[in-house]
Amino acid sequence: MNSFGRIFRISIFGESHGPSLGILIDGVMPGLDLQVEDFLPDLEKRKAGAKGTTPRKESDMPIIESGVFNGKTTGAPLMIRFLNENTRSKDYSSLISTPRPGHADYTARVKYKGYNDYRGGGHFSGRLTLCLVAAGVVAKKMLNANITASIESLGGSTDIESKIDEAIAAHNSIGGVVKVKIKGIDKGLGEPFFDSVESVLSHLIFSIGGVKGIEFGLGFRGEKLFGSEFNDKFIDKEGHTDTNNNGGINGGISNGNDIDIRVFVKPTPSIGVPQPTFNFKTNKVEDLLIAGRHDRAIILRIVPVIEAVCAIGLVDLALINKAYN
Amino acid sequence: MNSFGRIFRISIFGESHGPSLGILIDGVMPGLDLQVEDFLPDLEKRKAGAKGTTPRKESDMPIIESGVFNGKTTGAPLMIRFLNENTRSKDYSSLISTPRPGHADYTARVKYKGYNDYRGGGHFSGRLTLCLVAAGVVAKKMLNANITASIESLGGSTDIESKIDEAIAAHNSIGGVVKVKIKGIDKGLGEPFFDSVESVLSHLIFSIGGVKGIEFGLGFRGEKLFGSEFNDKFIDKEGHTDTNNNGGINGGISNGNDIDIRVFVKPTPSIGVPQPTFNFKTNKVEDLLIAGRHDRAIILRIVPVIEAVCAIGLVDLALINKAYN
Amino acid sequence: MNSFGRIFRISIFGESHGPSLGILIDGVMPGLDLQVEDFLPDLEKRKAGAKGTTPRKESDMPIIESGVFNGKTTGAPLMIRFLNENTRSKDYSSLISTPRPGHADYTARVKYKGYNDYRGGGHFSGRLTLCLVAAGVVAKKMLNANITASIESLGGSTDIESKIDEAIAAHNSIGGVVKVKIKGIDKGLGEPFFDSVESVLSHLIFSIGGVKGIEFGLGFRGEKLFGSEFNDKFIDKEGHTDTNNNGGINGGISNGNDIDIRVFVKPTPSIGVPQPTFNFKTNKVEDLLIAGRHDRAIILRIVPVIEAVCAIGLVDLALINKAYN
Amino acid sequence: MNSFGRIFRISIFGESHGPSLGILIDGVMPGLDLQVEDFLPDLEKRKAGAKGTTPRKESDMPIIESGVFNGKTTGAPLMIRFLNENTRSKDYSSLISTPRPGHADYTARVKYKGYNDYRGGGHFSGRLTLCLVAAGVVAKKMLNANITASIESLGGSTDIESKIDEAIAAHNSIGGVVKVKIKGIDKGLGEPFFDSVESVLSHLIFSIGGVKGIEFGLGFRGEKLFGSEFNDKFIDKEGHTDTNNNGGINGGISNGNDIDIRVFVKPTPSIGVPQPTFNFKTNKVEDLLIAGRHDRAIILRIVPVIEAVCAIGLVDLALINKAYN
Repeated sequence: MNSFGRIFRISIFGESHGPSLGILIDGVMPGLDLQVEDFLPDLEKRKAGAKGTTPRKESDMPIIESGVFNGKTTGAPLMIRFLNENTRSKDYSSLISTPRPGHADYTARVKYKGYNDYRGGGHFSGRLTLCLVAAGVVAKKMLNANITASIESLGGSTDIESKIDEAIAAHNSIGGVVKVKIKGIDKGLGEPFFDSVESVLSHLIFSIGGVKGIEFGLGFRGEKLFGSEFNDKFIDKEGHTDTNNNGGINGGISNGNDIDIRVFVKPTPSIGVPQPTFNFKTNKVEDLLIAGRHDRAIILRIVPVIEAVCAIGLVDLALINKAYN
Repeated sequence: MNSFGRIFRISIFGESHGPSLGILIDGVMPGLDLQVEDFLPDLEKRKAGAKGTTPRKESDMPIIESGVFNGKTTGAPLMIRFLNENTRSKDYSSLISTPRPGHADYTARVKYKGYNDYRGGGHFSGRLTLCLVAAGVVAKKMLNANITASIESLGGSTDIESKIDEAIAAHNSIGGVVKVKIKGIDKGLGEPFFDSVESVLSHLIFSIGGVKGIEFGLGFRGEKLFGSEFNDKFIDKEGHTDTNNNGGINGGISNGNDIDIRVFVKPTPSIGVPQPTFNFKTNKVEDLLIAGRHDRAIILRIVPVIEAVCAIGLVDLALINKAYN
Repeated sequence: MNSFGRIFRISIFGESHGPSLGILIDGVMPGLDLQVEDFLPDLEKRKAGAKGTTPRKESDMPIIESGVFNGKTTGAPLMIRFLNENTRSKDYSSLISTPRPGHADYTARVKYKGYNDYRGGGHFSGRLTLCLVAAGVVAKKMLNANITASIESLGGSTDIESKIDEAIAAHNSIGGVVKVKIKGIDKGLGEPFFDSVESVLSHLIFSIGGVKGIEFGLGFRGEKLFGSEFNDKFIDKEGHTDTNNNGGINGGISNGNDIDIRVFVKPTPSIGVPQPTFNFKTNKVEDLLIAGRHDRAIILRIVPVIEAVCAIGLVDLALINKAYN
Repeated sequence: MNSFGRIFRISIFGESHGPSLGILIDGVMPGLDLQVEDFLPDLEKRKAGAKGTTPRKESDMPIIESGVFNGKTTGAPLMIRFLNENTRSKDYSSLISTPRPGHADYTARVKYKGYNDYRGGGHFSGRLTLCLVAAGVVAKKMLNANITASIESLGGSTDIESKIDEAIAAHNSIGGVVKVKIKGIDKGLGEPFFDSVESVLSHLIFSIGGVKGIEFGLGFRGEKLFGSEFNDKFIDKEGHTDTNNNGGINGGISNGNDIDIRVFVKPTPSIGVPQPTFNFKTNKVEDLLIAGRHDRAIILRIVPVIEAVCAIGLVDLALINKAYN
């Protein structure tokens, strides 16, 4: 259940406070140049440290355990791992009885019958997105496309800087919208059932903690349009269209125009003000003040993760398409 | 690529104007009562005939080819098939050179190198959703939950009747928003990576033609809230929450509260007014008037389909959860 | 569970005495010539009628329900179906309480809690191999290789004709060995873990009822050899070897030499003499005389089935290999 | 491609001379006691050091990177890793141009276009079976059965000790037969198509390097029997049979009797005497004397590996069976 993909197949492991976390990538073509340095720019984008992000600092240096020889991929499974170095596990001990609102503490305990590693969210920690970013670096090398994600709005505003300040001042958190633009993607990717481009990308994007909405092209914003207005008209033999309300996808298949996606990321659930929650020890609703180090706007760190999973999904669709065509 | 699921696994086939279309369902538990009559209510909901839907009439009687014996499921693969009876294939011959805007004509041709069955959209036809509804009927019998989908708005308005009249008068089409409420779902369904409840349901819902946006809980509408406002607070030992902004899902896992989903369906691409499109024969942009019988608001027929795929996805997650717990 | 393959993916359905049985094939490349006539030669090879095979006659005409348009594959799922026309279900009613030795009657009942369709073996019937043969015809068209299976010995003898006569005279049944030779296969097919050529082919071959042993190359017959004798020495730059004790496979990967396989098929369990079995009604061991029409040597009809599944497995490995190389 | 299983899903990685190798296990139930010590007995059985095995010594201490908390499995992915400590990579440099007969050197180079890590066989090394043994330890804890594998014969003889001495004296290698007995397995495991017990177990066993033949029950040795002799007769209401020629499996489904398997393992390809092979540098067949440390009879170390993969396959079938029943 912790894997995805048919040919370019990723399997993830690790917990926030365990020895290490990582990702196993299958279906990597042999002969790609790959070294630790290649991962650093994308990992840096995701890293903590900017205003609004948690002060927990990790070196986040990828360790390549397999699948690379003499600086090139071998075609064998590629294993990339990261150490957990800067953990402060004692912060989390109270979470056993008082699940944090908006977090997976409660559902994890129910699902795993209390055996889950609750420290820092365990396997549900946002820290695991580090692994997705690493796999995305490999995927991008195999993909014929340019993927750019960026913050479109924060707390409903495009004045993003001031919204962060506002959240910091309130010891609170905010969410926002990430827009993704994918240029130069091959036509014909995706499958009619059930692996439409939208299906595969949403599957991956919704596996990132905090994502609660996705739209392709105009999405919900097109609800007042007539069909004559929403339809994108083909204007040349390359399949270019005058508008791109369908976000580059017709019938689940890429049409060669830009793939446009918008992703809603909810406010970080961990906040610096007390919140009521049910205390399973006292059997009462009581206020909880969450200790530990957290992000004011997890969305800031999700941007490179979304780019990564888009690359992961699209490269798999491209390999499948290549296989039987 | 035309299958989905791990245990409750569906595989779909057929074209709009081929001999028949159907769905093969694996992982059905033995001993369920199942007969043709069980499918009729949900199939009826999807059927053409209401105002705003295509006048093409099909009997849509399911034929059970396997997997049922003496009125009960056997545990062997269940094959359900529907005949295509009322086809008028000559309507579609012009689509070879003039792809309909917003449809899969162009992408299907590119992907399948011109070998696709283009009649009525072929394998991309909305008619295949019939199969999803049938599989949903089986899934619902295995699932411990109540799923209800309904139209929330059409063309941006809740006065839905008048919006249909408007579209009919304009020989145009409209889209809208379907809301889904799932009550009584077991806690603990879904997997942290990559099969979150959101991932699996969005994968299936986005494989329905015309769907361009999905949100869980408050979704995009929560972008102005602080974390303290967005977080749902646990109020009892059953995990009930005061609000349900997360749509019944924390960390990708169902928390026992209602699963709330909103789905945006674009306006039907086929409309009764001329639209410009590129003509691959004349190599010019020319007006196309689409013949054939179409829906003014495909969303009206998608409602039961969305219910069906939600049941399909959730029953698979429930079976997986049962397996290793 | 009733499907196999990653890209060239088959899903099977049907029972011996249900309305129809068939196979759904995904991952078929578009543009292949395909018509009903293409299936007939291989289906004929499997057909009843020869000495030693059951007198049950079926027309076994494949019905192509989807995936073919204008005589060519479309790239959409290909569904092929066969009608069950010549069934005599009343023959089988006694099997509810007295499971036939060597058959799946007992295990099917246990697995499916008594809900299985027991008539003629239901979903376990050898009749389902018809579907495998059909899928094999499609696979062969996509595969760059020549696959030939033949009877090597019957009842331990190469005088096959006389062994059949012996079994007929004794109202008994016999098994034997099928040898398979695959010429012209591409090098580099198969995966180190877990999809070695041996793994994939044995997976498929062992899913044919009655198969109880498989060896590649010399197999068990090489147990007295030293490594220096067993090793095949490379003799040219094309990778040809002096011997072929490894059956054309090194490290699970095809090396371009012939793939040689031997398959043991047990004697048909249904025989014309009384056998003791446990009677679940009387709670005693009692003699059972099996009515119905059966094969003296099911192996005679399995030969084309083995060819078919080899093609199915190899084409999937070839497509996977093509995808990421 | 380097993963197997539906619910209990394993993914393997690593090379003989890379930093580490390991296995990622998904679908582990939460709450199992698991610590490093649990792995040691089975790992010890596989370890080098006995007469006939390579003198390369590794500590082979498993490192649990994830999925265990407070000595119990958490339900999250379980990652187990082993360091490569005692590598002598320079031994293998000549293999680039002179592929060892019977090894994967040639096929690996062809498949991966020369980018494969050739040192010690790279990803094809028998060292990776270490990971399978580790996963088997976890599988056994979840499985209701007792699996015992042992050497039945070596070089065609049951005087195993003397056969090893013979091979050592000849600087040569030998193969043999492993017999497996699985007692106490649940009835009803396995699927009719395509995941018969035989299919799943052979898939896994044939992914172990050196395995070239598998038979269930009597297998090839039953080729002279009539059906009346081969059939196992049911003798009680528990499904016990008088003989076990079908090896505990009817129609691909376990019938509750012992599962009996015989596996042929070829002689270790690496031997201490010169062998001719094609030299891709000189373009001539030339003698190769393989340096490095090798096993005289790799079969000695494969015994616990076969036990492990049987447990892996059966636990997955058991979980699948549990899911929809």
